[in-house]
Amino acid sequence: MALAQVLAAIDKNLDRSLERLFALMRIESVSTDPAFAKNCRAAAEWLAKELATLGLDAGVRDTKGHPMVVAHGKAVAPAPHVLFYGHYDVQPADPLPLWQTPAFEPQLREVGGRKVIVGRGSADDKGQLMTFVEAVRAFVEAEGKLPLPVTILLEGEEETGSPSLAPFLEANKNELKADVALVCDTDMWNDTMPAITTMLRGLMLEEVIIKAADRDLHSGLFGGAAINPIRVLGRIIASVHDDDGRIAVPGFYDGADELDPEIKAQWTALDFSESKFLGEIGLSKPAGEKGRHVLEQIWSRPTCDVNGIIGGYTGTGSKTVIPAQASAKFSFRLVGKQNPEAIRASFRDFVRKQLPPDCEAEFLAHGGSPALQLPLTSPYLKKAREALAAEWGTPAVLKGSGGSIPIVGNFKRDLGMDSLLIGFGVDDDRIHSPNEKYNLTSFHKGARSWARILDALRS
Amino acid sequence: MALAQVLAAIDKNLDRSLERLFALMRIESVSTDPAFAKNCRAAAEWLAKELATLGLDAGVRDTKGHPMVVAHGKAVAPAPHVLFYGHYDVQPADPLPLWQTPAFEPQLREVGGRKVIVGRGSADDKGQLMTFVEAVRAFVEAEGKLPLPVTILLEGEEETGSPSLAPFLEANKNELKADVALVCDTDMWNDTMPAITTMLRGLMLEEVIIKAADRDLHSGLFGGAAINPIRVLGRIIASVHDDDGRIAVPGFYDGADELDPEIKAQWTALDFSESKFLGEIGLSKPAGEKGRHVLEQIWSRPTCDVNGIIGGYTGTGSKTVIPAQASAKFSFRLVGKQNPEAIRASFRDFVRKQLPPDCEAEFLAHGGSPALQLPLTSPYLKKAREALAAEWGTPAVLKGSGGSIPIVGNFKRDLGMDSLLIGFGVDDDRIHSPNEKYNLTSFHKGARSWARILDALRS
Repeated sequence: MALAQVLAAIDKNLDRSLERLFALMRIESVSTDPAFAKNCRAAAEWLAKELATLGLDAGVRDTKGHPMVVAHGKAVAPAPHVLFYGHYDVQPADPLPLWQTPAFEPQLREVGGRKVIVGRGSADDKGQLMTFVEAVRAFVEAEGKLPLPVTILLEGEEETGSPSLAPFLEANKNELKADVALVCDTDMWNDTMPAITTMLRGLMLEEVIIKAADRDLHSGLFGGAAINPIRVLGRIIASVHDDDGRIAVPGFYDGADELDPEIKAQWTALDFSESKFLGEIGLSKPAGEKGRHVLEQIWSRPTCDVNGIIGGYTGTGSKTVIPAQASAKFSFRLVGKQNPEAIRASFRDFVRKQLPPDCEAEFLAHGGSPALQLPLTSPYLKKAREALAAEWGTPAVLKGSGGSIPIVGNFKRDLGMDSLLIGFGVDDDRIHSPNEKYNLTSFHKGARSWARILDALRS
Repeated sequence: MALAQVLAAIDKNLDRSLERLFALMRIESVSTDPAFAKNCRAAAEWLAKELATLGLDAGVRDTKGHPMVVAHGKAVAPAPHVLFYGHYDVQPADPLPLWQTPAFEPQLREVGGRKVIVGRGSADDKGQLMTFVEAVRAFVEAEGKLPLPVTILLEGEEETGSPSLAPFLEANKNELKADVALVCDTDMWNDTMPAITTMLRGLMLEEVIIKAADRDLHSGLFGGAAINPIRVLGRIIASVHDDDGRIAVPGFYDGADELDPEIKAQWTALDFSESKFLGEIGLSKPAGEKGRHVLEQIWSRPTCDVNGIIGGYTGTGSKTVIPAQASAKFSFRLVGKQNPEAIRASFRDFVRKQLPPDCEAEFLAHGGSPALQLPLTSPYLKKAREALAAEWGTPAVLKGSGGSIPIVGNFKRDLGMDSLLIGFGVDDDRIHSPNEKYNLTSFHKGARSWARILDALRS
């Protein structure tokens, strides 16, 4: 009955938990603006002090930018060691006039029948990180000890691209290494259905420059005889996808496994409106691989997009030029075991084979990283799913993320750890925007969820 | 034997002709630089005075820019009325250090076994326009009168796009209208083979903007579901040409007649090196319609080129964006009776038919003009060919010009006149560059050529 007591402690202490969160939210820890550097440090110090009250060995650690908070707590009984990650920095509050209540004066309000915590950082990420801290506090209160070995790492530069994070992990590898990372910076499926993000697409970035004549040519004097690199590039772009939206680069799908049938069934059954999803950006039809569900298209299928193209005259009006070169930036989203560098090599061959006489291609590699996927067989995932289902009364959606979440790559590459990405944000939290909010349910049941997860992990 | 006397007068006066040309070349009539405005006016006044010595009613006429020179001369006997066009302005002499002799100190030098007139404007266009003036002078000297009614129009803004020319023609339509225009601003086939430019390709300019989502999208979050307008544009560009280099826009070839077999035979027999022509710009293979001679490709076949393209992120590095739009500037070179506006409409349909769901195309018309072609049956052309053949001992090449020569369109549209484009420049004249030269043969036999042409036209 230990867990029941922990959950009861969370319920009983909700008001005081909110007071603590509000205290943290009042600190204007805007990381991008040097004028708020002191506030960032103040937030780090507030957190270190807070974590010390839980019996953790907590400290503020300097970096070249804003400091890290690192806290360690040993458990009495042996259990998996978890590393929890969150970030205490927030986006700027601008534009201020659009806030209905001041950005850094957090409030509990009732909006549309829901109680919500309003203020900058409520959802991204102070409210989320405090769900974990409050769960740990409840264990300490109910049981007098930590449920398992915990390291907490809180950074203050997430909103500015985490420049200090990788060097910090590298420099403190042995100290920070744990069995599994817990990251609380993602969303639920909706207000009532929890989610774990288990698939992150990888990325391969490649720029192609097609060169033809040794100078720009007059299209009257040479048009019809001289090869036009924009035309060559257009044909290459057109050839990347076949008519079914599949990518024609040889070997591209090697390692891009089909989705597990269980997950596929879950996604298909979700309350997901394709027309709403696309309608919000002014579109109506999914444009990817034919016969695939939109969620599959964006979460578990690899893609190719051209992110930019330029060549010739691009000012106002016209200029009758055949340019000497034209270039395009390609990005490939990768899944499963697709190998970024093998695909880069194959894509280069694919481009070279299409070059007509007198054209050459120059390539610029702009980086690449493989997809990250938490296996369905992971015991940590299994326990987290059970814990979330128990708390929310419905199975957690195992989501994908089309974009990258760099911290997960860092943890995998640098510390050899898988990450459980579990967060309680919802779509309408307005993160980065005025009137950011976090559902009180997310905060309260979020803390209860972590309590259940930690309890499951230690057993 | 009247013509023989005229030619003898040209031969006899060659030294004095050169002195006159040198006097004109010493005037630094650089049109693009306001600091030389006085010099431009001085050149106009020098020419008006020169033409007056031939008995022409000559004057300097103001425009918003540099002045025009207009001279009229009535003939005693009835004959076709010709309008001669040339320009007295020149390109700047920069970079000065590269000149072996000062740009505005004309000299007769022997270079590589040829006597050449060296100096800015020698070939473009002072030397050329003076071939006509010297021919007229020879008639006056040998016969005491003009061979036929002559109007001479010399402008001072050709090197800056002739901004005053169209308004001047419009305002003086009745005064300037003649039976045929003679333009001396083009090249021979080579040092010894004369040419008449009888085909000028037309042009249709159209910009296409493909729009998809209502904002730029994150290619991770939406890639695979959202349509990418660069991909759509790439497919459109790829579809414009078929694998044989023909343009696939329906109806595009309507009015694009095959070349007259006589001309085709002439071109095929010419001493033309495809590899030299392309080699000079770093290419080796003609990239246009398969099975066509390069001269056909650039002179008498219609084309499509993309002159510019832009979309998405074009800075350094990468950005994972699916842009909301992408655009390309297309230009179509036209021949024969191809109708620019009919092709514009067909191209727009062609683009619209390829738009996938959620994409729309916006079009910007950047102008158009039909091709200009002097019919082989033109009596003026016939006489000019005979005259040139007699002077040079070899038939004149009937050339095309891939680019436009705006004055010819103005004469056709505004004054209803065909133009005979006959010039004596050669490839290595270095017009617009340091050490511009004009072959003495071009100058001397050019004047003799005009004498023969005028004699033929009056008969």
